[in-house]
Amino acid sequence: MTKGRLEAFTDGVLAIIITIMVLELKVPHGGEFEDLKPLLPVFLSYILSFIYLAIYWNNHHHMMQTVKHVTGGILWANMHLLFWLSLIPFVTGWMGENHFTAASAFLYGIILLGAAIAYFILQFLIIKSHGKDSILAKALGRDIKGKVSPVLYVLGIITSFINVGISGAIYILVAIIWLIPDRRIEKALKNQ
Amino acid sequence: MTKGRLEAFTDGVLAIIITIMVLELKVPHGGEFEDLKPLLPVFLSYILSFIYLAIYWNNHHHMMQTVKHVTGGILWANMHLLFWLSLIPFVTGWMGENHFTAASAFLYGIILLGAAIAYFILQFLIIKSHGKDSILAKALGRDIKGKVSPVLYVLGIITSFINVGISGAIYILVAIIWLIPDRRIEKALKNQ
Amino acid sequence: MTKGRLEAFTDGVLAIIITIMVLELKVPHGGEFEDLKPLLPVFLSYILSFIYLAIYWNNHHHMMQTVKHVTGGILWANMHLLFWLSLIPFVTGWMGENHFTAASAFLYGIILLGAAIAYFILQFLIIKSHGKDSILAKALGRDIKGKVSPVLYVLGIITSFINVGISGAIYILVAIIWLIPDRRIEKALKNQ
Amino acid sequence: MTKGRLEAFTDGVLAIIITIMVLELKVPHGGEFEDLKPLLPVFLSYILSFIYLAIYWNNHHHMMQTVKHVTGGILWANMHLLFWLSLIPFVTGWMGENHFTAASAFLYGIILLGAAIAYFILQFLIIKSHGKDSILAKALGRDIKGKVSPVLYVLGIITSFINVGISGAIYILVAIIWLIPDRRIEKALKNQ
Repeated sequence: MTKGRLEAFTDGVLAIIITIMVLELKVPHGGEFEDLKPLLPVFLSYILSFIYLAIYWNNHHHMMQTVKHVTGGILWANMHLLFWLSLIPFVTGWMGENHFTAASAFLYGIILLGAAIAYFILQFLIIKSHGKDSILAKALGRDIKGKVSPVLYVLGIITSFINVGISGAIYILVAIIWLIPDRRIEKALKNQ
Repeated sequence: MTKGRLEAFTDGVLAIIITIMVLELKVPHGGEFEDLKPLLPVFLSYILSFIYLAIYWNNHHHMMQTVKHVTGGILWANMHLLFWLSLIPFVTGWMGENHFTAASAFLYGIILLGAAIAYFILQFLIIKSHGKDSILAKALGRDIKGKVSPVLYVLGIITSFINVGISGAIYILVAIIWLIPDRRIEKALKNQ
Repeated sequence: MTKGRLEAFTDGVLAIIITIMVLELKVPHGGEFEDLKPLLPVFLSYILSFIYLAIYWNNHHHMMQTVKHVTGGILWANMHLLFWLSLIPFVTGWMGENHFTAASAFLYGIILLGAAIAYFILQFLIIKSHGKDSILAKALGRDIKGKVSPVLYVLGIITSFINVGISGAIYILVAIIWLIPDRRIEKALKNQ
Repeated sequence: MTKGRLEAFTDGVLAIIITIMVLELKVPHGGEFEDLKPLLPVFLSYILSFIYLAIYWNNHHHMMQTVKHVTGGILWANMHLLFWLSLIPFVTGWMGENHFTAASAFLYGIILLGAAIAYFILQFLIIKSHGKDSILAKALGRDIKGKVSPVLYVLGIITSFINVGISGAIYILVAIIWLIPDRRIEKALKNQ
C-alpha cells in the first residue's frame, strides 16, 4: 500500500519533470527552418536530460520492485532524490540557451552528482532496512556502475572549466554506461 | 506489477503532454472577440494534436492489455515513443503561431512519422517477446492502418513544400482513419 | 482494468488542468500589496474554475463507480469531455486578465456548456451500454440538475452582452447547485 | 476504491504543484555564475516550499492509511486543502522574486495558515466519520504539532511587518518541527 503510493507520486513527479522540460523549447516567432537553428543546443540538451530522467525512472522502478516495506527514512530519501531531479529542467534550459558555457556545464554536473548521491542514499536505506541478504543487496553486488558514475560526474565538473566539450562527452558517456542493459535486479528477482 | 507502473508513467506523461499544449494558447491582452482571431490557427492545430494524442493513448491502452510481461527493450521502446510525443506541443505551437508555414507543416509530419515508427518498434518488441501466436499478433493481422499511416505521413511531409493545405489535409485524413472504430484487439481478447 | 486506466488518465488530466490554471496568476514584479490588486479578478475567476473542476472530478468519480465495462464510445466521450475541460484554464485567464468583459463571459459560458453537453453524452453512453436498470440509470432518476445546468449556461451566455454581472452570478449559481450534497449515486450503490 | 482514486488525484495535484514551482526559476539570459545570483532568493524559497509540500504529502499519505470509507465531506475537505496548496507556487515565486518583502512574507504565512486549517478540517471530518476510537483519533492523541503550527504561522504573519527575517525563521522552524520523525500513526496502525 505505502509502496504503491510512493511509486505513484514518484511516477507523477518524474512524468511532469520530463514533460515540463519541453517548455524550455520556446516556440520561435518566425516560421522558417532557420528560426529553429538557435534552438538546436536546447534540443540537444533536452535529449540528454530526457535520457537521464528515463534512466532514473527505469532504475527506480527496478529498485522499488525489491522493496517490501517503506520506512520514514526511505520516504524522505526519495523526496531528496526528486528534489535534485526537479532541478534538471532548469539547468537543461540554462545550458541549452547559453550554448554550453563552462558555468552551465559545471552546474549540470553538480545537479547530476546531487541526484546520484541522493539515489545512493535511497539505495543504502533500502538495503539497511531489508538486510544484507535482501534481493537488492544481492543484485547490486559490488555496484560498479553506481560507484563509477559519481567519479565521472566530478571529472565532468572539473573539466567544464578546461574544455566544455570534454565535460559534455563525459556526461554522455555516463548515460551510455547506464543504457547498456543491466539485468542484475531482474536476475536476482528470478533467483529468489 | 511492472506493467502497471509502465502504464501509470505513460498515462502521466500523455496526460501532461495533452494538457500542456493548451499553454500555447496564450491569453490575449485585449478582451474582445477580435483579439481571439490570431489564436484561431493555434486552436485548430491544438484540436488536431489533441485528437492524435487521444488516439495514441487509446491504442497504447489497448496494446498494453495484451502484454503479459515487460522486458527492458519494451521499457525503452516505450520511452522512445514518449520522446516523440513530447515534441508535439512544441511543433503544434510553432505551426499554429506561424499560420501553417511549409516548414512547420514539414516538421509536424516528421514528429508524427517519428512517433509512428516508435509505436511500430514498441509493437514489434511486444510481439517478439510474446510470440507469433500471442493475442496482439493475431489481433493486428496484416495491420493495414499501421502500414498506411507512415506512407501518408511521408506524403504529407513532401507535399508541405508544394501546398501546405494538401499536407494538412493528409494529416487530418490519418487522424480520421484511426478514429474509425477498430475492434481487432477487443475481439482477439474475447476470442482468447 | 480498462476502467482503472481510464480513471487514472482522467485524474491525471484533471489534476494538471486544475493546477496549471494557477500559472495564469503571473507573479507581479513589485513586492507590495498594491501590486496584487490587478490580480484580484484573475484570482476570483481562478476560484470559480477550481470549484467547477472539483465538481467535475467529483461527479466523474461517482459516475465511474457505477461503470462495469468500458466501450470505445465511452472512451471517446470521455476524451471529448476532457477536451472542453482543458480549455478552462485559457478562458479563466482571459476572463480574469480582462476584468470580465462581455466577450470573455460569453466564451466562459460556451466552454461550460460544451463541457456539460460532453458530460451528458458520456452519461448517456454509459447508461446505454449498461441498461435502463443499471445503477446509474436508477440513480439519476429525472436528473434535474443535469437538465437545469445547460439551460442556466445558455442564460449566462445570453446575459453576458446585457450585463456581465448577471452572467457571472448565473455561473456562480450553477456551481452552488452542484455543491449541494447529492447522494443519488451513493444511495443507488448501497441499495444495489 | 473511492479512497484509491482520491489518493491518486491528490498525488497528481501535489506532484504537479511541487514540480511546477520550478518554473518560477526562470532561466537567465546570461550564461555565467553571476547571472544566477538574482535567482538565489527564488531558489531558497523554492527549497522551503518543496519541503512544506513534501511534508504535506507525507502526512496526507499517513492519514489516508487510516481511512476506511470516504464521505462527500471528506472529498470536499480534501479539495479545499488542495486549493490552498495550489497557491504555494505563486506565493513562493512572489516572495523569491521580490527578495522577501514584508507583504510577500505575510502572504506566504496566510497561505500556510490556510493550508493548515484545511488540513485540520480534513482530519476532523475523517475522525468524525470513523469514530473517536478510530486509528487516526488514537494516533493523534493531543496532536501538539497540529495545534502549535497555526499559532506559529500567525506569529510569522504578524512579525512579517516588524522583521521579515524573524518571520522567515518561524516558517523554517515549523518545517523543522514536522521533519522530526513522528511515528504516531505508524505505531497506531501496528497496535491495531
